[in-house]
Amino acid sequence: MQAFDNNEHPHRRYNPLMDEWVLVSPHRAKRPWQGQQESTVTDNRPQYDPTCYLCPGNERSTGVFNEKYTSTFVFDNDFPSLLTDEVQAPETSPLFQIKTERGINRVICFSPRHDVTLPEMETADILKVVELWAAQYSDLGSRDFINHVQIFENKGAVMGCSNPHPHGQIWSQGSLPTNVDKTQNNLKKYFDAQGRSLLADYLAEEMQRKERIVLENKHFAVLVPFWAIWPFETLIVSKRHFGNITQMTAEERYAFADAIKRITIKYDNLFKTSFPYSSGIHQTPTDGLSHPEWHFHMHFYPPLLRSATVKKFMVGYELMAEAQRDISPEKSAAMLRDLPEVHYKNDNF
Amino acid sequence: MQAFDNNEHPHRRYNPLMDEWVLVSPHRAKRPWQGQQESTVTDNRPQYDPTCYLCPGNERSTGVFNEKYTSTFVFDNDFPSLLTDEVQAPETSPLFQIKTERGINRVICFSPRHDVTLPEMETADILKVVELWAAQYSDLGSRDFINHVQIFENKGAVMGCSNPHPHGQIWSQGSLPTNVDKTQNNLKKYFDAQGRSLLADYLAEEMQRKERIVLENKHFAVLVPFWAIWPFETLIVSKRHFGNITQMTAEERYAFADAIKRITIKYDNLFKTSFPYSSGIHQTPTDGLSHPEWHFHMHFYPPLLRSATVKKFMVGYELMAEAQRDISPEKSAAMLRDLPEVHYKNDNF
Ligand SMILES: O=P(O)(O)O[C@H]1O[C@H](CO)[C@@H](O)[C@H](O)[C@H]1O
Ligand SMILES: O=P(O)(O)O[C@H]1O[C@H](CO)[C@@H](O)[C@H](O)[C@H]1O
Repeated sequence: MQAFDNNEHPHRRYNPLMDEWVLVSPHRAKRPWQGQQESTVTDNRPQYDPTCYLCPGNERSTGVFNEKYTSTFVFDNDFPSLLTDEVQAPETSPLFQIKTERGINRVICFSPRHDVTLPEMETADILKVVELWAAQYSDLGSRDFINHVQIFENKGAVMGCSNPHPHGQIWSQGSLPTNVDKTQNNLKKYFDAQGRSLLADYLAEEMQRKERIVLENKHFAVLVPFWAIWPFETLIVSKRHFGNITQMTAEERYAFADAIKRITIKYDNLFKTSFPYSSGIHQTPTDGLSHPEWHFHMHFYPPLLRSATVKKFMVGYELMAEAQRDISPEKSAAMLRDLPEVHYKNDNF
Repeated sequence: MQAFDNNEHPHRRYNPLMDEWVLVSPHRAKRPWQGQQESTVTDNRPQYDPTCYLCPGNERSTGVFNEKYTSTFVFDNDFPSLLTDEVQAPETSPLFQIKTERGINRVICFSPRHDVTLPEMETADILKVVELWAAQYSDLGSRDFINHVQIFENKGAVMGCSNPHPHGQIWSQGSLPTNVDKTQNNLKKYFDAQGRSLLADYLAEEMQRKERIVLENKHFAVLVPFWAIWPFETLIVSKRHFGNITQMTAEERYAFADAIKRITIKYDNLFKTSFPYSSGIHQTPTDGLSHPEWHFHMHFYPPLLRSATVKKFMVGYELMAEAQRDISPEKSAAMLRDLPEVHYKNDNF
């Protein structure tokens, strides 16, 4: 029997945050690709676009005008998925379970400039985004009917983002969403059994093994999780065990901004393109309970696989059966680790 | 307080097959769309394409020639995600769980004709595909190291399909994939508690309520599940409770082919386009155990939302938090139900 090689042999890995497995087929990256190609972004956007509904001072489709903001800017989503109205509870039965859901959706502009993205912003300006996230988490989370605040960003047309102006979203709501609920259950099971944070123990072992660490600073590590699904998926984990963004020290907030800047620069450098992804923060719910099991982290799920135009399709097998990846997490981590930390637009490496 | 209206008010619904919730924001279909548009298929393919690696008699990239097949055709995938080699078990630990996985991947051509898709084939020819699926399930499932046979189809470039020649795939393997395992656990929990099939009870209630039924014949119903995630997701459920495709009577096989033809015609008619989707069959694993909890069904997950070119993006919130939909399942079911069952290419309705 052959000795196992994780860059050669098909295998499955376990995701302890989600209690799910992923199929890894490292040998499969060799197959030729004849399928759909994504279009790439034309990279000559103006600093200010009079037709952009997110630029400072511009009118939105609802007739409201944006502030002439000079740093970050937040407003209630004009087309929210959730509403604040109280509605009567619908009839429900075991196989037809249904409940009303209330919430608040907001949009956050990261910068007044139309032509930048997070990796092209100064760390000090990303820090302002981090501070706004913290303030929004507190503001929304303090309301009675809000028990969870989901901060996320969809970047790039391929990730359903309809406007290139740098921005993210917050969907806050009464219930704990499915994936957060699963993560919480798994973190709690581990914490109750071991008396320690699952992610702290996991990070300690990754720091020893080193092969999946992409970068780090004093307070955060960025790594390709052992169980990553997306080809260049990464996780930002805090070195200290705390539950949410309001518990960061000033130094940790800056270090978090630094980690975001550095990983997104590496992403852009990978295929010399404005690298699309969905990112999101997982942290304690705002249900007023103590949650010692939670350990602050941020996921990046980028779709690209082989180039600026070829993405990984999560389709048939993945939707019916199980997530599947074509390159080992160790290989992806090495590729990201080896990339420069100067943005390709600012350097000829 | 307002009375609840499932076509107006945000709510969550429970999926008892997956033990997951979905967020429904029916009011949100009103928002304008300025994002990515998919390209549509040019519909003048030849019956035979000398450059297609799936057409009869043609050479594949491995140098092998296809049979000059006249009906269906099956072969081992040239770029399989799984291999049959036995490999030594890798080292594993609680937060780094890993196991080797063996399996066989096959490709199934549905027709020798390059220019058709399932809805454009005769029911008698779709029946041959059903019969081949049954034979493959038996053949692959009978092997010692195969405990699960996943039959699926990716249709359309937007679903990662790299060749328009009508074909599907089979990925068979040693382990029960994550989503199948979850479904099995939930079916089993219900069966153990109630002594009846979850899907039989569910279907009985849907047949009473009628609002989510799209079409039916003597042996199968096609409906938009109460908990559907994709805008026009459907489920084909057998009226009789049996576990897998080899247990169908000849009449049931024909009725299954009829259900596939009719729902895929409606799909094409919805936006007058070759409607993309991933479909897949969920049935008993081939682990040699008795599985009275299983109830044969087939999922269709189509990505389109508003038109032939605007799909639903499962991104930021959906990846981090929970699946979300912008149109109620009842509305989608009504739209599909009202469509003709004659393919738009063959009729001017
Ligand atoms: O095997 P294919 O058709 O080349 O590939 C397609 O289906 C597979 C199974 O769902 C996916 O893993 C691939 O991402 C997709 O492009
Ligand atoms: O709110 P947006 O940016 O218009 O919409 C985008 O993000 C949402 C949240 O992930 C998704 O539900 C939409 O499918 C996507 O297009």
